Amino acid sequence: MESDVAVVREIVSAIRSVVGGGRTVLHEPVFHGNEWRYIKECLDTTFVSSVGAFVDRFESDLTGQSGAKYAVAVVNGTAALHIALLLADVKPGDEVLVPSLTFVATANAISYCAAQPHFVDSEERTFGIDPERLRHYLLATTCQRDETCVNRSTGKVIRAIVVTHVFGHPADLDALAAVASEFNTVLIEDASEALGSFFHDRHLGTVGLIGTLSFNGNKTITTGGGGAVLTNNSELALKAKHLTRVAKLPHPWEYRHDKVAFNYRMPNINAALGCAQLEQLSFFLDSKRKLFEAYKEAFNGIEGVKLVVEPKGCRSNYWLQTILLDKDYSHLREPILQATNEVGIMTRPAWVPMHQLIPYKQCLAMELPVAESLGERLINIPSSPGIME
Amino acid sequence: MESDVAVVREIVSAIRSVVGGGRTVLHEPVFHGNEWRYIKECLDTTFVSSVGAFVDRFESDLTGQSGAKYAVAVVNGTAALHIALLLADVKPGDEVLVPSLTFVATANAISYCAAQPHFVDSEERTFGIDPERLRHYLLATTCQRDETCVNRSTGKVIRAIVVTHVFGHPADLDALAAVASEFNTVLIEDASEALGSFFHDRHLGTVGLIGTLSFNGNKTITTGGGGAVLTNNSELALKAKHLTRVAKLPHPWEYRHDKVAFNYRMPNINAALGCAQLEQLSFFLDSKRKLFEAYKEAFNGIEGVKLVVEPKGCRSNYWLQTILLDKDYSHLREPILQATNEVGIMTRPAWVPMHQLIPYKQCLAMELPVAESLGERLINIPSSPGIME
Repeated sequence: MESDVAVVREIVSAIRSVVGGGRTVLHEPVFHGNEWRYIKECLDTTFVSSVGAFVDRFESDLTGQSGAKYAVAVVNGTAALHIALLLADVKPGDEVLVPSLTFVATANAISYCAAQPHFVDSEERTFGIDPERLRHYLLATTCQRDETCVNRSTGKVIRAIVVTHVFGHPADLDALAAVASEFNTVLIEDASEALGSFFHDRHLGTVGLIGTLSFNGNKTITTGGGGAVLTNNSELALKAKHLTRVAKLPHPWEYRHDKVAFNYRMPNINAALGCAQLEQLSFFLDSKRKLFEAYKEAFNGIEGVKLVVEPKGCRSNYWLQTILLDKDYSHLREPILQATNEVGIMTRPAWVPMHQLIPYKQCLAMELPVAESLGERLINIPSSPGIME
Repeated sequence: MESDVAVVREIVSAIRSVVGGGRTVLHEPVFHGNEWRYIKECLDTTFVSSVGAFVDRFESDLTGQSGAKYAVAVVNGTAALHIALLLADVKPGDEVLVPSLTFVATANAISYCAAQPHFVDSEERTFGIDPERLRHYLLATTCQRDETCVNRSTGKVIRAIVVTHVFGHPADLDALAAVASEFNTVLIEDASEALGSFFHDRHLGTVGLIGTLSFNGNKTITTGGGGAVLTNNSELALKAKHLTRVAKLPHPWEYRHDKVAFNYRMPNINAALGCAQLEQLSFFLDSKRKLFEAYKEAFNGIEGVKLVVEPKGCRSNYWLQTILLDKDYSHLREPILQATNEVGIMTRPAWVPMHQLIPYKQCLAMELPVAESLGERLINIPSSPGIME
């Protein structure tokens, strides 16, 4: 067995062999398309804000890309999650099942609804919720009342399951959809990281009743800040539009609103960027897949670590390339993060699992050994689409 | 007395004499500065998103412009209000005093805190909260408990007063600050519409403990969508930064968050637009003041209507030019809106007062005769800075 120092050195070299010398960020966007032209069009027409042709076009392009019937562009991925939960009819006091191993925005969005995150465990194969263990947990702890799922210990309704597709890798959607249906909870897909990823032939975010996307600066495509709600249900799509546009009733001049609602619209200038970025999606995806192949070769044979591969039968966007340390190498996570960042190779661990964060420590949770273990063993490595150019 | 038809015709002609023929929108931005150059810089450096030099610069430029010690750029004016209320320590169940005559976002932001809007009346001189009537109302209906203001009928704490500077005209801040102080409530200034407006020599949004700005597409300057929180209190400024950036603790790679918080950061690309717009603010303000002068002349002598003038001793940005119908001419509001919009002159009434909206009908309120009367008599007329060019 090699020394720890040697393994760390090998990992740094493997990354260097792919990304070259110099400072390398984790993920930066590439603007090689019509970004300039479309943004200039916004400035020339003065339509930079909440009304504009690029918002409509971006929403339409997203449906074309994802196969969802409807897409509603919003100001960021967190806003998309918030709206998705409201569309699922999550009410104050409800519980929402959510993996502990995801970005904190998902739990925050549940908090905005005055509902409670209820953490469930992940599986090592997909990094998504483990459907089999979830099913056993719900069988043991819930009952059905008026066709809703009720937590027997709290008496609260478990209204929805939010499935995150971690780093763009598809969770086991068929099995999770079956569990959601069996227990009468709404399936929401947090596909923030998963534009361009497919579960078999279905784009992520289109299997659940509602899906969400993010276009933050570090995502596969960016709008500066932005997100979208996907659904095949026309009523929910209309409701999403209404809720994100301060519930203003249509009228040529009158300002009348029929609900407590939100200012979550994506500005036209951000949508313009999105339209141009979306045109280059297949280039980005190809580039990310090539990067994956290059890393696979580079990491081949290094002991204690493996490069993460898309689940069988699925197609991942390989948003963030990821290495997973073997269990008896997890003590190397910090040294690897230290060594890589020190030489200007930006890397990061997975999120601290949410049940370990101060604001969510007291939340309900099943046993979470896999989330905890993965949290200690995952490292994201540089993944920009233009990195090998 | 002229016929109604004649008055409406005169009003249409007065607007036409200023804005010329053809279609005229209510307010559109002008991009004659460095907008394109700064946005291009974002694209060239790939910094379009939540981190970037333009966000820092825009915040610094806003402090320079307003005289506030700190400015925190956020995703829109609603987000700014939400954060302002949280900084004022508004808690679930609290009441917040707010004028009924303002945009619904203010009440919505109070709802996001699970607090209750408590509507107060406006005065005809400033369109802002009437400080004298507010004081009498609070004397009659509240008591002090542990140095907080308590509503005697509900037993709830009245935590804050949100003062809106309607259409950019300064509310009576000295008197309102005195009332806020007398009753131990926090003064928040909703200066969404008031960039470039001054109460005597103080920029709006800097007199209260916290102020908010909006940079929506229809505002004096625009960032596409955007807003800012202003304060002179360093602790509150830090808290605003933390709350708007998902409460992430500083660390080179770890994702750890210590609060339920928000993704309310302004993207760098929107801030770039804002920096360029802010450079042109004095041109916009001059242009708006000239437009006011032109309208004043055009409306001179038309019976039943007067052009709205900044309160004495104050300097308004004249964001939206406004006409106020005399009380016995209020039946002309709809015919005027109809006639102007029909010929392509975009006009709009004030908002439907919030106590008349479905989601806020049941809220607490004092008698609101002035808000109701103003709501029936105010009309905004075309106000773009470039309109007379």
